[in-house]
Amino acid sequence: MEVLARAKQLEAQGRDIVHMEIGEPDFVTADPIVAAGQQALAEGLTHYSQAAGVLALRQQISEFYRRRHGVAVSPERIVITPGASGALLLLVSLLVNPGQGLLMADPGYPCNRHFLRLVDGEGQRVPVGPEQRYQLLAADADAHWRDITVGAIVASPANPTGEILSRQELAELHGVCQQRGGHLLVDEIYHGLSYGCDTPSILEVTDQAFVINSFSKYFGMTGWRLGWLVAPPAAIPAIDKLAQNLFIAPPTISQYAAMAAFRPDTEAILQQRREEFGRRRDYLLPALQALGFDIPHAPDGAFYLYADISHFSDDSEQFCLQLLEQAGVAITPGTDFGDHQAHSHVRFAYTTSMARLQEGVARLKDFLVG
Amino acid sequence: MEVLARAKQLEAQGRDIVHMEIGEPDFVTADPIVAAGQQALAEGLTHYSQAAGVLALRQQISEFYRRRHGVAVSPERIVITPGASGALLLLVSLLVNPGQGLLMADPGYPCNRHFLRLVDGEGQRVPVGPEQRYQLLAADADAHWRDITVGAIVASPANPTGEILSRQELAELHGVCQQRGGHLLVDEIYHGLSYGCDTPSILEVTDQAFVINSFSKYFGMTGWRLGWLVAPPAAIPAIDKLAQNLFIAPPTISQYAAMAAFRPDTEAILQQRREEFGRRRDYLLPALQALGFDIPHAPDGAFYLYADISHFSDDSEQFCLQLLEQAGVAITPGTDFGDHQAHSHVRFAYTTSMARLQEGVARLKDFLVG
Repeated sequence: MEVLARAKQLEAQGRDIVHMEIGEPDFVTADPIVAAGQQALAEGLTHYSQAAGVLALRQQISEFYRRRHGVAVSPERIVITPGASGALLLLVSLLVNPGQGLLMADPGYPCNRHFLRLVDGEGQRVPVGPEQRYQLLAADADAHWRDITVGAIVASPANPTGEILSRQELAELHGVCQQRGGHLLVDEIYHGLSYGCDTPSILEVTDQAFVINSFSKYFGMTGWRLGWLVAPPAAIPAIDKLAQNLFIAPPTISQYAAMAAFRPDTEAILQQRREEFGRRRDYLLPALQALGFDIPHAPDGAFYLYADISHFSDDSEQFCLQLLEQAGVAITPGTDFGDHQAHSHVRFAYTTSMARLQEGVARLKDFLVG
Repeated sequence: MEVLARAKQLEAQGRDIVHMEIGEPDFVTADPIVAAGQQALAEGLTHYSQAAGVLALRQQISEFYRRRHGVAVSPERIVITPGASGALLLLVSLLVNPGQGLLMADPGYPCNRHFLRLVDGEGQRVPVGPEQRYQLLAADADAHWRDITVGAIVASPANPTGEILSRQELAELHGVCQQRGGHLLVDEIYHGLSYGCDTPSILEVTDQAFVINSFSKYFGMTGWRLGWLVAPPAAIPAIDKLAQNLFIAPPTISQYAAMAAFRPDTEAILQQRREEFGRRRDYLLPALQALGFDIPHAPDGAFYLYADISHFSDDSEQFCLQLLEQAGVAITPGTDFGDHQAHSHVRFAYTTSMARLQEGVARLKDFLVG
């Protein structure tokens, strides 16, 4: 956040900044989705929707799970939310009482902890490193489970690391949570953004887990603020009531626009963009490794690389600020994502064009070599 | 909620229902706002905005306060939120620690209590009746203040009563909160919808209060999910950080659309609609009184009438369900808004056309007279 603010200051002063800190696709929303939004406006669809969202969209998501993952998820189990943020708020509110906690990987998405704090709960951070591909795996979840623990939240692909959980790993996590009588929450908001590997959904393993998803990343709809959750059938009435009280409803126009997200013409655009992200990863990963950034395993998803900078610095915040000031390259210090080895790690986001990534790498080289 | 669900069931069975239960303007969003939304889409404004919202919109709201209320509210004190719901979430999160509470009128907007429960706080309900126009006034706030109390939340115009707080009443409430070292939160989401009377903003009294407002009601943008809050300058950095963590940002397209909300051509449309609401009130209020509904004071705002049904029933839920089943008229029982005299009150919303209101009154007459 500090880096982002300073980068904007420098740009306002006329400096050219290569942005490799932004967790948002650089592409504008795909044309068919935009056109559907405009059509909804032309039709006057400006009133509240149901709290759980427009049924036709929930049906489309259900069909998407059948097609993409081969699983039956009834529309009644799907709740449309104001962004994945809205889904997180509903789930912590439903599942976590004051004093209780959820296990989560450190490093991880920082807002998870803030949502827990909101309900006077605790984000129980479990240190994870390259040896478990920065993921909270079953054995660590079991080892860190405490009396206050009511479940675990994992992300696949993960932010800030881009790492994916295998079906086996998901099944083992589910096993631990079942055995402990807790809940498993899986953040799948980067689903669809994976490069040459299978990205299983927890829904292929069980219908008793909670899934958080979003139209922001793969579907490229950040500014529309639209996400969804999938829950076990028994949890839906309580979630519906919470959604009614906390949001009234998700944005109506965004929902009608999102109905175009699953069309073949949209899918073709989104696949092209996914391939472009893949090309960027394939360029950036070896380029950073050649410069001395330590990335021991090639992450297969999202649009992030999480790199160990021990060769250069033991203070990631200072490293990022100096890189920004001296070289005009913005990246994110590990301290934005937790405590564990946070001072020796940084996150690169490849959410800018290949040309700008190349410019960034050239500047990094100058900065590091001197 | 039960009435709404049952009304939909009956409609699905082919019954004609007069809807006087819906807390949403029946008008589609005004054309200039819709056109601005379409324009924003055409320009590809589909990315995240800043967490606090687009600066140009905050500047327009600032200008709106200067023009409408004659007060200087700097754009830095204005935070755009995902609906007024988002503003409420930010404020309870900022101001209320576990075990603490906010005073609020009973009857009142039910979600206020749910937001407090979310943060393990308490909605301290103060029974109010027609003798104080169903408003929480300074004397009652002072009398009900307890150790756990950190402030009071009032609404003007209020839901479910349509009653407005005078400048004097607001000033006295501010005085009590100041003296007690607490916060004053004023829900002004029905501002603009008042009929022949002045609706002062708390910002005319003090810059130390918190204001919750919305583009939903007067501006007719419910489905766009856009609101705002105004806070004392010292609270803004914390609110900005909370907004970043809890929402990332409010919907971008809605914000660009809302920039057309303050234009003279939009204002002309909104004033016509306000006048139409006024005509409906002027018809419905005496019509209900003639039928035996007790509404001792003519409320001057919002689009609600809160009526005492003691002449007919001591069970407002049963009364509403019977009225729906037998006469096809949907209204809301007082029990949706609190406990105090809730079984002897109902809420009428005049969010449907004059012809439908007349039909509703005719059906009410048949239902009551038999």
